[in-house]
Amino acid sequence: MSEKITALDLPQGELSDATRAYFAKCEEKLGLVPNVLTAYAFDEKKLRAFTDTYNDLMLGDSGLSKLEREMIAVVVSSINHCYYCLTAHGAAVRQLSGDPAFGEMMVMNFRAADLTEKQRAMLEFAVKLTEQPAKIVEADREALRKVGFTDRDIWDIASTAAFFNMSNRVAAAIDMRPNAEYHAMAR
Amino acid sequence: MSEKITALDLPQGELSDATRAYFAKCEEKLGLVPNVLTAYAFDEKKLRAFTDTYNDLMLGDSGLSKLEREMIAVVVSSINHCYYCLTAHGAAVRQLSGDPAFGEMMVMNFRAADLTEKQRAMLEFAVKLTEQPAKIVEADREALRKVGFTDRDIWDIASTAAFFNMSNRVAAAIDMRPNAEYHAMAR
Amino acid sequence: MSEKITALDLPQGELSDATRAYFAKCEEKLGLVPNVLTAYAFDEKKLRAFTDTYNDLMLGDSGLSKLEREMIAVVVSSINHCYYCLTAHGAAVRQLSGDPAFGEMMVMNFRAADLTEKQRAMLEFAVKLTEQPAKIVEADREALRKVGFTDRDIWDIASTAAFFNMSNRVAAAIDMRPNAEYHAMAR
Amino acid sequence: MSEKITALDLPQGELSDATRAYFAKCEEKLGLVPNVLTAYAFDEKKLRAFTDTYNDLMLGDSGLSKLEREMIAVVVSSINHCYYCLTAHGAAVRQLSGDPAFGEMMVMNFRAADLTEKQRAMLEFAVKLTEQPAKIVEADREALRKVGFTDRDIWDIASTAAFFNMSNRVAAAIDMRPNAEYHAMAR
Amino acid sequence: MSEKITALDLPQGELSDATRAYFAKCEEKLGLVPNVLTAYAFDEKKLRAFTDTYNDLMLGDSGLSKLEREMIAVVVSSINHCYYCLTAHGAAVRQLSGDPAFGEMMVMNFRAADLTEKQRAMLEFAVKLTEQPAKIVEADREALRKVGFTDRDIWDIASTAAFFNMSNRVAAAIDMRPNAEYHAMAR
Amino acid sequence: MSEKITALDLPQGELSDATRAYFAKCEEKLGLVPNVLTAYAFDEKKLRAFTDTYNDLMLGDSGLSKLEREMIAVVVSSINHCYYCLTAHGAAVRQLSGDPAFGEMMVMNFRAADLTEKQRAMLEFAVKLTEQPAKIVEADREALRKVGFTDRDIWDIASTAAFFNMSNRVAAAIDMRPNAEYHAMAR
Repeated sequence: MSEKITALDLPQGELSDATRAYFAKCEEKLGLVPNVLTAYAFDEKKLRAFTDTYNDLMLGDSGLSKLEREMIAVVVSSINHCYYCLTAHGAAVRQLSGDPAFGEMMVMNFRAADLTEKQRAMLEFAVKLTEQPAKIVEADREALRKVGFTDRDIWDIASTAAFFNMSNRVAAAIDMRPNAEYHAMAR
Repeated sequence: MSEKITALDLPQGELSDATRAYFAKCEEKLGLVPNVLTAYAFDEKKLRAFTDTYNDLMLGDSGLSKLEREMIAVVVSSINHCYYCLTAHGAAVRQLSGDPAFGEMMVMNFRAADLTEKQRAMLEFAVKLTEQPAKIVEADREALRKVGFTDRDIWDIASTAAFFNMSNRVAAAIDMRPNAEYHAMAR
Repeated sequence: MSEKITALDLPQGELSDATRAYFAKCEEKLGLVPNVLTAYAFDEKKLRAFTDTYNDLMLGDSGLSKLEREMIAVVVSSINHCYYCLTAHGAAVRQLSGDPAFGEMMVMNFRAADLTEKQRAMLEFAVKLTEQPAKIVEADREALRKVGFTDRDIWDIASTAAFFNMSNRVAAAIDMRPNAEYHAMAR
Repeated sequence: MSEKITALDLPQGELSDATRAYFAKCEEKLGLVPNVLTAYAFDEKKLRAFTDTYNDLMLGDSGLSKLEREMIAVVVSSINHCYYCLTAHGAAVRQLSGDPAFGEMMVMNFRAADLTEKQRAMLEFAVKLTEQPAKIVEADREALRKVGFTDRDIWDIASTAAFFNMSNRVAAAIDMRPNAEYHAMAR
Repeated sequence: MSEKITALDLPQGELSDATRAYFAKCEEKLGLVPNVLTAYAFDEKKLRAFTDTYNDLMLGDSGLSKLEREMIAVVVSSINHCYYCLTAHGAAVRQLSGDPAFGEMMVMNFRAADLTEKQRAMLEFAVKLTEQPAKIVEADREALRKVGFTDRDIWDIASTAAFFNMSNRVAAAIDMRPNAEYHAMAR
Repeated sequence: MSEKITALDLPQGELSDATRAYFAKCEEKLGLVPNVLTAYAFDEKKLRAFTDTYNDLMLGDSGLSKLEREMIAVVVSSINHCYYCLTAHGAAVRQLSGDPAFGEMMVMNFRAADLTEKQRAMLEFAVKLTEQPAKIVEADREALRKVGFTDRDIWDIASTAAFFNMSNRVAAAIDMRPNAEYHAMAR
C-alpha cells in the first residue's frame, strides 16, 4: 500500500479494533480491503456512515438482485466516467453474472446487452435520473410499475442510482484509485 | 400529515423508541420533522444510515462553516433543479446567513452574490463536480488549495457536493415534498 | 438607489416628464420602480420600446391569464438561472396565485407543481423552445392545439417564452439587480 | 403572398394607414416587406413594439457598426439554427460586408472568418450569452472592455445577442418563412 | 492557389501521373479540384483511401439518390458547424435539387423544409447518430424500415452520416478552406 | 459464426480470392478476423476502402506510435460509448502497452492515467474534436505544437480522432458486435 490511494493527504490515525476487524473480514471475503474504505478511514465516523449505507443498499434485502444493483452501479458510473467505480463494480458484475463480456457491456454501453424488458426499463430510469434528474415525472415511475417493479423496488433503483452519483463524484473529486486486483478478477 | 410526502406507497411500520425520540428532538429543535426523514422511516436501517451520514456531513467538525456547507447544498440543488432540497436548504441558508436575499441567490444563481474569492472557488468546484465529474483534474484541486483550502476541506467540499447529487436524485425519483413550513422561514 | 443596479456605467440624463410620470405610476401601483426600467432609462427610446413590448405582452389582451404568462416567465428564467427575473417574476407568481409555495415551484422546478394538463403542455412547450428552439416542429404546435390552445394562444405562449429568453440574457450580460423589495412580497 | 408565412392561422385585419405607409417604405428601401413584419401585422400594437425595438437596436446610434450588429444576429441564429433569421440577416451581412463568403462564414461557423481580436471577443461574448447565460461573470465583461469596448458598447452587444435569442425562438415556434428574395441577394 | 488551404504546413511533393490525371478529371467535371483533395495530396496513399471511400459512398450504387446522400452530408455538417462541408456540399444540394432555398434549409435547419416522411426519418436518424450515437437502439432502425428503407439503405444512411462526422472533424481540426467557387454555384 | 455480427441483414456473396487471402492473414496475425471486416464484406469495394484507410491510419508511418493511435481510438470511443471499438481497441491498448490497467483507464477515463504532458495534450485535443468540433481554433493547434507535435503529427491526431468518430457511429448504427476473443486478450 505504498502507492497513493487518493490525491488528498489525509493522515490516517490508529484504527479502532472494530475497523481492524471489519477490514480483516473484507480481506477474508473479498481478498482485499477496497480502497474506498481505506480512503474513508481517516475518520471512522465517516467510514461507518459510508459502510452502513453501502452495505444496506448493495447487500441488504431488496426486490432487486445483487447483480441488478451492481448493473445500476456500473451504468451510472459509465455515464459519469468514474474510473474507481467502473473498475470495482465492473468486476462485481463480471463475478455475479459469470459473464465477463456482460460486465464489459455495462461498463461500455449497456444498450449492447441482451436484457429483459424489465432490466432495460430499470437501467433507462437510472440513466435519466443521472442525466436529467429534474425531468423525472410520474410517467417515469409508471413505466417501472408497468414492467413489474413495486414501489419498494423503485425506491431501491432510485437509491442505488443516486448513491453512485454521489460515489462517482467523491471518487472523481479526490482521484480515488481502485485496488489493482480488480482488473484481473473474473475475466 | 394527511398529504403524501412522496409518490411511492411505502407503508411505515411502528416506529422504534429511538426513532420517535429522534423525531421529537427534530420537532423541538427545528419545529418540524423534515419530510426526508419521514420518507426514509419505512425502513429504520436506511433512516439511520441516512441521518448518520447527513449529521456528520452537515453538522460535524469541518473547516467549512455550516453556512458554507448549506451554500454548497443549495448550489448543487439549483443545477439539478431539486424542489425538495432547494426549499429545505434554501431556508437553511436564509437562516444561517440572516440574509434572505442571499438565500435566494444561492437558489437562483450564486454568481449574483457578492462572495469572497475563496467561496467562489468552493462553489465553482461544486458546480464542475456536479456537471462534469469526469473532467475534474489535479488543477481543480490545486485551485482550491491556492485560495486556502486544506486537503481535509477539499474532502468536505467534495463530500457535500456529492451528497446532494445523491439526495437531489432520490428526491426527484420519488417526488419528495418538502414541509410547507420551510417556505415562510427566515424571510 | 445608491447601490448599483447593473455592472455597467451608463450615465442617466434628466428624465423626461413622460418617463417621470410613468415611474410615478409604477411607484403608485407596484410600490417601486422595477430596476429593469431604471436600467433602460439611460436611453428613453430603448426604455419606451421595452415597456411597450412588455406591457402588451404581459398585461395586454390574451387567452392566457396574467398568472399563466408569469408562470412562463419564471419557468424560462429557471432554465436560464436568471436572478433578476426569478426574483421579480417569482414575486408576481406568488402574488397572482396567492400561493407562495406555487411561486417557489415555478422558480425551482415547475414539475413539482400540481398543474392542469393544459398548463403542463404550455410549460413544456416553453421549456423546449428555450432549450432546443431548432427542434420545434409541427407536432409541438399540435400538442398545444390538442389541449385547447388557439393559434393566437400559441403566439402568446411563444412570444412570452421568447421574450424572457431575451430578458434573461440582458440581465445576465449586465448583472442586473432586482429591487430588494421583491424578496419579501407575498410570502 | 399566397404562400403561408407562418404555421399559425392569425387573420390579419385591415391595415392602418400608418402601417401601410411603413410597409410601402420597406418595399421602397429593401425591395420587400420582411415577412416578420407581415407575421406581426395581425396586431398592430405588437407590430409597432417590435419595429420600435428592432429599428433602435439595429439601425439606431451605436458604437457598433451596422455590420457588426448583423454579425451578432447571424452568429446567435447559427447556434439556434433559425432558418428565418439566418436567411434574412445572412443576406444583410453579405450586403453590408460586400463579401458573400464572409456572410456564409457567419451562418456556418464564424470561427472560419479572419476577424479582428475585437470582433472575435464580441462574438465569443454573444456565443456564451446564448449558450450559457447563467455563467456570464464580470470577467466576461472585462474581456470586452480590454479589447476596447465601452460600457455602452457592451449594452449594445448584449441587447443584440439577447434580441435574436428572442427572435429566433418566435420564428422557430411559429415556423416563420423568410421572403424568397433573400436567398439570391448579394451573392 | 496562393492562399492557404489548411492551417497545417504539409509540403506536397511531386504528384504522380495518376493523381494529376484524377485532378484533371475533377477540373473537367466540376470546374475545380476540391480543396479537400489538395489537402490530402501531401500523401497519395491517404488521398487514394479518401477518394475511394468518398466516391463509393457518395457516387456509387445505393438505394439513396445522390441528392439524399448530399442532404445527409449537409445536415450532419450543420450540427457540427463545419464551414468546409457546408460550403461544398451545400452547393451540391443546391445543384442536385435545382432549388437554392432547399440547399439553404439543409445548411440552416432541415426542419424548415417540406420533406417526405421518408426523408424526414432518414435525416432524424442522421441527427441522432451524430448527436447521441450511444443511444441508437433497435427501435431507431425499425423506424427506418417502417417508412420503407431496406437494411442496405440503413447501411448507406449510417455510413454517410458517419463519414461526415469524420470529415467535419478533419476539416475543423486543420481549418480546411473550401474553394471560393462553391459560394456562387447554383444560386 | 452462427451469431449475428450486426443488426442488419446484408447477405454476403462469395468472397474473392484477394479477400479470402486477406482474412487468412488476419487469422494468422491476430488469431481472428475482426468482425468489422466481416460486416463490410457484403461489398468488397467498401471493405477495401475501409481497410486501406484503416491500415494506413493505424499501422502506417506516423510520428505517433501505434499505441498512441490506439489510445486516441479508445478515448474517442469512450466519449461515444462505442461497445465495438472499446472492446477491440481496448484490447489493443492492453496489448501494446503491456499494462491491462492502462487499457482500462483509456476505456473508462483517461484522466485517471499517469500520462506525459504531450500525451495529455494529444488526448485533450481528441476530446475537444469529438465533443465540440466547431470550437477548434488556432490556439488548440498551437497547444499541440507547444508540447512538441509537428504539423504532420497534428494531421495524424486529427485523422485518428475523426476516423473513430466515424467508426463509432457505423458500429452504433448497425449494432456491430465485437469478436468474443477480445475480452480475454492481454488481461
